[in-house]
Amino acid sequence: MSVVLSSIRLGPQHAFRAPRTRLVSVLRAPARSLSAASAQPASPAKDSKRSGPASEQSVTPLSEDFSRWYLDVIREAQLADYGPVRGTMVIRPYGYALWERLQSWLDAALKEHGVQNAYFPQLIPMSFFEREAEHVEGFAPELAIVTRGGGKELEEPLALRPTSETIINSMFAKWVQSHRDLPMRLNQWANVHRWEMRTRPFVRTLEFLWQEGHTAHATPEEARAEAMAMLEVYREFAVTQAAMPVIAGRKSRIEQFAGANATFTIEAMMRDGRALQAGTTHDLGDNFSRAFGTQFSDAGGRLRHAHQASFGMSTRMVGGVVMSHGDDTGLRLPPRMAPLQVVLVPVAARGAAAAAVLAAVDAALVALRATGVRAQADVGTEKSPGWKFSHWEMKGVPLRIEIGPRDVASGTCAIARRDRPGKEGKEFGVPLAPELLVQEVLKRLDEVQAELLERATRFRDEHILDVSSHSQFLEVIEQGKWARGWWAGSDEQEVALKEESGATLRCFPLEQPGGGGTCFLTGKPADQVALFAKAY
Amino acid sequence: MSVVLSSIRLGPQHAFRAPRTRLVSVLRAPARSLSAASAQPASPAKDSKRSGPASEQSVTPLSEDFSRWYLDVIREAQLADYGPVRGTMVIRPYGYALWERLQSWLDAALKEHGVQNAYFPQLIPMSFFEREAEHVEGFAPELAIVTRGGGKELEEPLALRPTSETIINSMFAKWVQSHRDLPMRLNQWANVHRWEMRTRPFVRTLEFLWQEGHTAHATPEEARAEAMAMLEVYREFAVTQAAMPVIAGRKSRIEQFAGANATFTIEAMMRDGRALQAGTTHDLGDNFSRAFGTQFSDAGGRLRHAHQASFGMSTRMVGGVVMSHGDDTGLRLPPRMAPLQVVLVPVAARGAAAAAVLAAVDAALVALRATGVRAQADVGTEKSPGWKFSHWEMKGVPLRIEIGPRDVASGTCAIARRDRPGKEGKEFGVPLAPELLVQEVLKRLDEVQAELLERATRFRDEHILDVSSHSQFLEVIEQGKWARGWWAGSDEQEVALKEESGATLRCFPLEQPGGGGTCFLTGKPADQVALFAKAY
Repeated sequence: MSVVLSSIRLGPQHAFRAPRTRLVSVLRAPARSLSAASAQPASPAKDSKRSGPASEQSVTPLSEDFSRWYLDVIREAQLADYGPVRGTMVIRPYGYALWERLQSWLDAALKEHGVQNAYFPQLIPMSFFEREAEHVEGFAPELAIVTRGGGKELEEPLALRPTSETIINSMFAKWVQSHRDLPMRLNQWANVHRWEMRTRPFVRTLEFLWQEGHTAHATPEEARAEAMAMLEVYREFAVTQAAMPVIAGRKSRIEQFAGANATFTIEAMMRDGRALQAGTTHDLGDNFSRAFGTQFSDAGGRLRHAHQASFGMSTRMVGGVVMSHGDDTGLRLPPRMAPLQVVLVPVAARGAAAAAVLAAVDAALVALRATGVRAQADVGTEKSPGWKFSHWEMKGVPLRIEIGPRDVASGTCAIARRDRPGKEGKEFGVPLAPELLVQEVLKRLDEVQAELLERATRFRDEHILDVSSHSQFLEVIEQGKWARGWWAGSDEQEVALKEESGATLRCFPLEQPGGGGTCFLTGKPADQVALFAKAY
Repeated sequence: MSVVLSSIRLGPQHAFRAPRTRLVSVLRAPARSLSAASAQPASPAKDSKRSGPASEQSVTPLSEDFSRWYLDVIREAQLADYGPVRGTMVIRPYGYALWERLQSWLDAALKEHGVQNAYFPQLIPMSFFEREAEHVEGFAPELAIVTRGGGKELEEPLALRPTSETIINSMFAKWVQSHRDLPMRLNQWANVHRWEMRTRPFVRTLEFLWQEGHTAHATPEEARAEAMAMLEVYREFAVTQAAMPVIAGRKSRIEQFAGANATFTIEAMMRDGRALQAGTTHDLGDNFSRAFGTQFSDAGGRLRHAHQASFGMSTRMVGGVVMSHGDDTGLRLPPRMAPLQVVLVPVAARGAAAAAVLAAVDAALVALRATGVRAQADVGTEKSPGWKFSHWEMKGVPLRIEIGPRDVASGTCAIARRDRPGKEGKEFGVPLAPELLVQEVLKRLDEVQAELLERATRFRDEHILDVSSHSQFLEVIEQGKWARGWWAGSDEQEVALKEESGATLRCFPLEQPGGGGTCFLTGKPADQVALFAKAY
C-alpha cells in the first residue's frame, strides 16, 4: 500500500493546511488487494505495454454478472476487504475516503439545521428493548449480545446497539423537562451491529457505520416536519453529491421502522435495476417517549409526552455510489464524492525529456491543488502509462491528465474523462498554462458530475414502468424493472405480492400524479401510486 | 436543550458554509443538567440579580474537593452524563464539541504525515488475543465478550476491541507482501471497551472514543522513528491547542503497553497534582507481525517480518483539558479548543435602548463570525445578565463581550477574560467598530491561549521536585507533587515503590539532564532520571 493519497486531505475542510510544496509526490502502484476469495500471495506485476491489457485489474464485466462485478470492484479498487468474523468488513482507505466525503457534507448540513453531535454508549440493557413492543419484535432477532465483562458473567445481558432510540430516550427522559428544552436535536456518528445472515460489502454487513439523528419536539406536527426536513437533506446529498437520482417517498406499514408511526425513504436504482434504500427518516410519534417517560411541562405547566423523529444514513451509501455509476472497467466516481478527482500521468518521457515533463506535471499538480482540486501525480517508473490508465480507471478517478514531451513543447496536455471511455472522452491540446488548465479541469469536473446524474436519471426513468394489472406487474418485475401503479391493497396483499414476485413496496413517492386511479391488484379506487422493485 | 451552539460549525473546516444572515440567534438558557446524582426534576430557575449568586451553576470549589469539583463541572457545564450501564458515559454536545476540536486538528496532522483512515471490525475472535502472550495477559481481564448473535450461541466468543493490534495484523498479513507495500500507515476513529472497575467521566470509562494508528515498516529503526514522530504530534497538539505543558518520555518496562518493545507517553499534570497519561505511542517491534505472520519480501526477495508502531489519543483528553485549566467557578477553555470562543451579552438594555443594543450585538456577532471566530450572542430576556455571566463562565468561554446603551452611545464595549476572574480581567472602552473589535478579540484570544499555557507551565514546574533519597521521594509524593530523580532500580523495586507510595513511574523524560547520577533508591550509578507521581 504505497499509494499515499495525500490529496484526500485537500478537501475544503482542510484547505487551510494544503501543502504548498513543489515536490512531485512519488506514487508507486499498490500491491494487489487480496480478498478472502484469492488468498494467494500476489506475484510482482509484470509491466504491460501501454496498449496491452492490465491483467492485474480485470473485473467480471458488469453486464455479464452484476453481483460478481460488484465484488470484483470492491476488491480491485481496494474499497473493502472481508473481516475475520463472518459478515464483517474492513473499510480500506479508498472506501473510507468516500465515507469521509459523505461525513463532511452531511455533518455540515445537520449542524446547519441545528443538530448537535453527541455520543451515547453502545451497550444497551436488554430490558430497554422490551419497553417498546414493536421495536423489540423488529430488532431482537438481529442483536449481538454481551454476556461477559471483566471476566464475569453479567447480571443483565447487554445488546450492541442496532440503533439507539431506546438508550437515547432513557437520557431524553432526564434532559427534557420543559417546553423550553425543545426542540432537542442530537446526532451521533457511530457503529451499529445487526446480525444479518446474507451479507454483502457496504450494502449489508454485521457491523456498519452511520449517523443517527434523534430529536424531540413539543408537537406531532413538528416531529413529522423534522422527518420530512431530514429526508430532504438526504435527497439533496444523494442528488447533488452522489449523483444518485433517488426517489423520496413514504414506506408502507409493512416496511416501516419498528416503532415508528411513519418511515420516509430515499430509494436509489442500481445499475442492475435493483432498489437500494439509501437513507431513512422516521416519525416516531410519542411511541418511545411513552415507553421511557420522556415528558415536558408545556407553557401552561401540564406534562406532555415529547414527539420524536430519528434518521440515519450509513456506509451502505458507498455501495450505492459504486452500483449507481460503475461500468465494465470499474468504478466511476462523481467528482464531488471522489477522494481523488484528477490523476496526472507523464507519458513517453524518457531520457532528457523526462525532466521537463515531470516539471510540467508538478506545476499542473501544484496549480490544481492550490484551487482545492483533489489531484495526484502518478510518476513512478515501474509501471507503464497503460497500466496506470487502467489502474486509475478501475478506481474511478473522474479526470486523467496526460503530459508528454510533445505536449510540453506545445504547451498543451490531454484530458481523459472517466465517464466517457476510450477516444470519445479524451481531448488533446488542452492548454497547460496553470490558470487555463485549472479552468478546463473545473469545467470538466462539473460536466462529469452533471453527466453522471443525467445518465443515471435516464437509466432510472427507462426502468420504471407503469402497471395497471397484476400480470403487467409480474412482467415488469420479471424484467428486473420497477413497477409503478395505483395501490389500495391491504397489508396482507402487499406481503403476498412480495412472496409471489420477490418485489417489495419501496415507497409511495412524495411526488404523486394527483387525483386517483384504480388499484392494479384489487381494482379498488386508490388515491396514491406506489413503487415496487426487487431490492438489496 | 434550547442552546443551539450553531457557532460550533464555524470552525475553519466549515468556514465555507458560514451563514451570513444578520439575524441574531435567539439563545435561551439550557435546562439544568441532571446527573444520576441529582435525579430531581429541575425547577424553573429564579432570575438572580446581576451581582447575586447563580444558584443553578454552583460547583464545589476546586480547592476544597478536586474530585467533587470535577464531577460538578462535568455535570453543570453539560459535558457528559452517566449512561445506564455502570461505568458508561454519554458525551453531551458541549463535551463532544471539544472532542471534535481535537479530531479536526489531529486528523489533519495524521494525514499530513501520510496516515490514511480506515475502519476495522469491532468484533475480534478471542483466539486472536491468545497469539501474542503479553498482549492477552494485559487485556484478557478487561474484555467485554459477545457470546450470542442472531438468537444463537456463537461457536467462538468475540471480544469487543480494547485496541486493534490483533485484528489489524490479521489484515496486514494479507496486504503486506512486498517491501514496496511499506510503510503502511493506517488510522481509525473508533470506540473501544475496557471493563474498568473504577470509572470517572472521560478519564476512565468502560467505553471510550479514540483514534488508533497502526503502521508497518521494513526496519526496526523506522518503526521506532514512527513512534517518536507520532509522540511529537501528540505533544504539539497538547501544547499548542490544549495549552497543556505535557512532558514527553518513555514508559518503564512495568508500565509499557502489553505487547510493545517500548511505549512513549505524554504526561500531563492536573490541577490537583496528579498525572494524566494523555497519549501514548508504541514501538511494537515484530511481536505482532510474528504472531500473525505479517511478512514482506525485501529487495533481495527474502521474506522478513514487518516492524510496527501503534499510537492512540482518546476522549480522556477532554477530561485533561478540564482538569488542567478549570477554576473554582468552572471550566476555563483554551481558545483553540473552545467550541465557543466569544459570547456576546447585552446589558441594561430595556425599553427604547434595547433595539440599538441588539443591533450592535448583531453587528459584532456577524463581524466576528465572518473572521472565523466561534461566537454566539445570548440575547434571551428570561435570564439576567448576571445569570448569563455565571453560565458562560461555568462553560469556560474565553471571552465575554458586554454591550449596553451607554456603550452603544460611545461606540465601545467591555470585554471580560475568563482566565482572569473579576474586575482584573474586564476591560471597558474597547472599540465597537467591527474591524477594530475583531482585532481586539483576536489579540485577546491569543493572549488567553498563551497565558493558560504559561500558568499551567508554572504550576507544573512548581510541582515537580528533584529527589535524591528514598525519604525525600516519599515526602514529595506525600505532598501531592511529582518526584524527579536518578533511577537505576529493578522492575521489582519499581513495583515495591508503587505499593509503598501510591506513585508510579510516569516516564523517563526525553529531555534528560545528561551525564549520570546516583539512583535515589538504590544508590547505584544511574544514567537517566525518571518522573514519579500519583496518576489517574
